[in-house]
Amino acid sequence: MKRLIGNAVVGQSGGPTAAINATLAGVIRGVKENVHDGSIRTLYGMRNGVEGLLDERLVDLTELFADDKKITSLENTPAAALGSCRKKLPDPEKDTEVFEKLLAIFRKYDIRYFFYIGGNDSMDTVAKLSAYTRGHDYEMCIMGIPKTIDNDLVVTDHTPGYGSAAKYIAVTMQEILRDCAVYTTKAVTIVEIMGRDAGWLTAASAIGRDISGHGPDLVYLPERNFSMSEFFEDLKNILEDHPNVVVAVSEGIHFADGTYVCEGTSSGAVDVFGHKALSGTGKALELAVKAELGCKVRSIELNLPQRCAAHIASKTDIDESVCVGREAVRAASEGVTRQMMTIERVSTKPYVTRISHSDVSEIANKIKWVDDRFINERGNNVTDECVEYLVPLIMGETAPEYDRGIPVHITI
Amino acid sequence: MKRLIGNAVVGQSGGPTAAINATLAGVIRGVKENVHDGSIRTLYGMRNGVEGLLDERLVDLTELFADDKKITSLENTPAAALGSCRKKLPDPEKDTEVFEKLLAIFRKYDIRYFFYIGGNDSMDTVAKLSAYTRGHDYEMCIMGIPKTIDNDLVVTDHTPGYGSAAKYIAVTMQEILRDCAVYTTKAVTIVEIMGRDAGWLTAASAIGRDISGHGPDLVYLPERNFSMSEFFEDLKNILEDHPNVVVAVSEGIHFADGTYVCEGTSSGAVDVFGHKALSGTGKALELAVKAELGCKVRSIELNLPQRCAAHIASKTDIDESVCVGREAVRAASEGVTRQMMTIERVSTKPYVTRISHSDVSEIANKIKWVDDRFINERGNNVTDECVEYLVPLIMGETAPEYDRGIPVHITI
Repeated sequence: MKRLIGNAVVGQSGGPTAAINATLAGVIRGVKENVHDGSIRTLYGMRNGVEGLLDERLVDLTELFADDKKITSLENTPAAALGSCRKKLPDPEKDTEVFEKLLAIFRKYDIRYFFYIGGNDSMDTVAKLSAYTRGHDYEMCIMGIPKTIDNDLVVTDHTPGYGSAAKYIAVTMQEILRDCAVYTTKAVTIVEIMGRDAGWLTAASAIGRDISGHGPDLVYLPERNFSMSEFFEDLKNILEDHPNVVVAVSEGIHFADGTYVCEGTSSGAVDVFGHKALSGTGKALELAVKAELGCKVRSIELNLPQRCAAHIASKTDIDESVCVGREAVRAASEGVTRQMMTIERVSTKPYVTRISHSDVSEIANKIKWVDDRFINERGNNVTDECVEYLVPLIMGETAPEYDRGIPVHITI
Repeated sequence: MKRLIGNAVVGQSGGPTAAINATLAGVIRGVKENVHDGSIRTLYGMRNGVEGLLDERLVDLTELFADDKKITSLENTPAAALGSCRKKLPDPEKDTEVFEKLLAIFRKYDIRYFFYIGGNDSMDTVAKLSAYTRGHDYEMCIMGIPKTIDNDLVVTDHTPGYGSAAKYIAVTMQEILRDCAVYTTKAVTIVEIMGRDAGWLTAASAIGRDISGHGPDLVYLPERNFSMSEFFEDLKNILEDHPNVVVAVSEGIHFADGTYVCEGTSSGAVDVFGHKALSGTGKALELAVKAELGCKVRSIELNLPQRCAAHIASKTDIDESVCVGREAVRAASEGVTRQMMTIERVSTKPYVTRISHSDVSEIANKIKWVDDRFINERGNNVTDECVEYLVPLIMGETAPEYDRGIPVHITI
C-alpha cells in the first residue's frame, strides 16, 4: 500500500437517508484531521454523484466547511446535501468511454482519492471504477462508504442509515399502535414499509415490542413466501382475541410463485437498475381483507419519511455514520484502496462495534437477507432474537438545533 | 352559578391526537389541585367515551394517577388513553332514552361534573347533554374541552391538538423537501394532508417556508375550488424554473361543482355522522399529472402519524392542552357549566393567549374555515400572514422519556 498525495472527491449516490450527510460530515472531519500529514489537500464534493462529476460540477468542501458548527448542522440534515444520482456505469471491460472521461477529470483536478457514499448500486460503481483503474498508471485510492436504509449490504453487520430509518419505523409503529387501540370496533390496520428485497426495515416495526409490550400482531417479510389464505386465517384468530389488529408488511412481499402481492396495482415500470417499481402492497391487502372479512380495514404507507425523518434519527446510527466517513479517510490516507468500509459487531450486550473494511468487488450486487433465526416458524412475525439484535441500532436521540419549531437543515 | 359537591367523570371522544392525553392530564391535575375545596371528590374516567359510560365502564383516575410522574408520562402519550368512540346522541327533544340512562348512571355514581374532551362531533354530545339536563332537578356541570387536529372549531382561536399535528406536518414537509431536492430529473411530489372540510393542516405544510426558505411550491386547501387545468398550468410554469416540484393538498379538495378530487377513488362510504370517507386525493392527482406531464410523479399520504406523532409534539400545544384541561376543572368548580373551553389569542408577537370558555351550543356543528386573508389570490398557496399566524403554535419541543430508543407511553 502506497500513500498518495493529491486532492480528494466525495459523492453521494442512490436513495437519500437521514444519515448520509453524517457520513459526508465524517469524510470532511477526516480530511480536516488528516490534512496535517499532507496526503489530502482539497476535498471536492461532486454534485449529484458521478453524474455531476462527469460535468465537473464540483464544490470545494474544505473551504465551505471551515467552520465546525456547519459540519454539526450537516450531521442533522436529512437527504443528500451534495445531491444524488442513479447512474449505472457500464462494464469497464466492454465500454471504457465513461471511465476515460472520469480519469481525465481526476488528472485535471489532481484527484487521487475517490470516496463514494451509497448503497448496493453505488458499490457497483465503486467496484467498476476500482476494476478499471487497477491496470492504469494513474494511481488512485477508491473507497466505498456504505449507506442504505435497506440494510441489505453483505459483509458489514449493518449499514449506516438503517438505524435511523429503523428508529423512525419503530417509534411510528408504537404511535400507530396507541392510535389503533382507542376504538372497540373490529379493525385491521396494515402498515406498508419499504424493502424491495430484504425485510430489515419491516422487522424494525417490532423493535418496541420488548420495550413497551406492544408490537404489530403480524409481520411479513419478503424472505418468506406470502400466503393470502394463511394471512386471513391469522387475522381471524387474532380478531377473536382483540379488536384492533395491526399488521406490518414489506412492500416487496410475494406469493410462492414469485408474483408480488402488489403486482395488480404496480405500474410495471422498472428503474435503471432493472428493479421493478413497487407500490400499493398495503392497498392491495386492504382491499383483499375488506372483501374477505368485511370489517374496517385501512392501509398506511410509511413512504418517504422512512428515509428522511432526521428529527427522530438514531444517535447510534448518526455517530456510526460519521465514524465510517472519518475512518474511510484515515484508511485511504494509509494506502487502503478498492474497499468498502464495514461495521463489525463485537458484541450485542454491551453493544460494541469495530470499524473495518472489505473488498468492494465481493460486496457489490449481493443482497443480505434477514437471517432465518430472525423469522418465526410460521413466517408471520420476527423472533425475540431479532428484536434483541436490532435494539442497539436505534438507541439514543440526537439533539438537532431548532429554529422557531423547525429543525435547522443545511444546504450546499 | 352554584358550586356542586360530588364526583366527576371525564371522557375522550372522536379521533385521537398527540395532545388529547395532555388535556386529560390537565383535568387530572385540576382535580388534584381543587380537591382541597371539596367540590370534586373522585374523578372517574369513562372508557371509550359515552359508549363506555353507558356500560358503566369507569376507572378511578384519582387513585390511578396518585403519582405525579405518571401524569407527566400521560402528557407525552399519543392517542386517547381512555379509549374513544364515535357515538352520536339523538336529539333530546325527540328521544330521551339514552339521556335518562346517562342520568341514572350520574345519580348512581354521584357524578355532578361531566368533562368531555373532543372535536366538533363531541361538542354535539356536550351540547345535547347540556340541553337535556337543563330542565332537570339533578343539577350538573357539563363542560366541553376542545381537541381536534383539524382546528375547525369556531370561537376558539385554535384547538389543542392542532399545534402538534401542524408541527409534525411542517417538520415532515421540510424533510420531504430536502429528500426531493437530491435528483436533477423532473419530478412532482404530491403530499396529501388530512382535512376533510378545513385546510388548516395543509396550511401548516408551509410554516417552514419563512424559517428555512423552503416550502411546498403549491398548496391547495378545500376553502377554494380546485381546477385541474390551473393546476397543470402552475406545475408547468414551476417545472421551467426548477426540476423538483412539491405540492401539498388537503384530502378534501373539490372541483367547482362540489365533486371531490378523490371521488373516483373513494369508497363512497359515510361515517356515523354522515361524513364521506375520503382517501386517495394524492393518488388521483398523481395519475392525472402522470398522464398530462409524463414526468416522474409520486404521491405521499401523511396518514395517521399526523394525529399520533407525539415524539415531535409542539411544546406550546402540549402546554396549552394541559392548561385547558386544568382550567376546565377550575371553572366548573366555580359553577361554570354548558360551556366549551376556548383559547383567546391576545397577541401574536409576542405570542400571548388567555384561556376562557363559551356557550357550547353556539360552537357545536359549525366549521371554522381558513380565513380569506390566509389564502393567496390564485388559491394555490397560503399567504405570509398565514405563516406568521401559525408559527407560534408549533414552537418548542417536548422532552419525552425514552427507553432503549423508544418513547415511553402510558396505558390506562
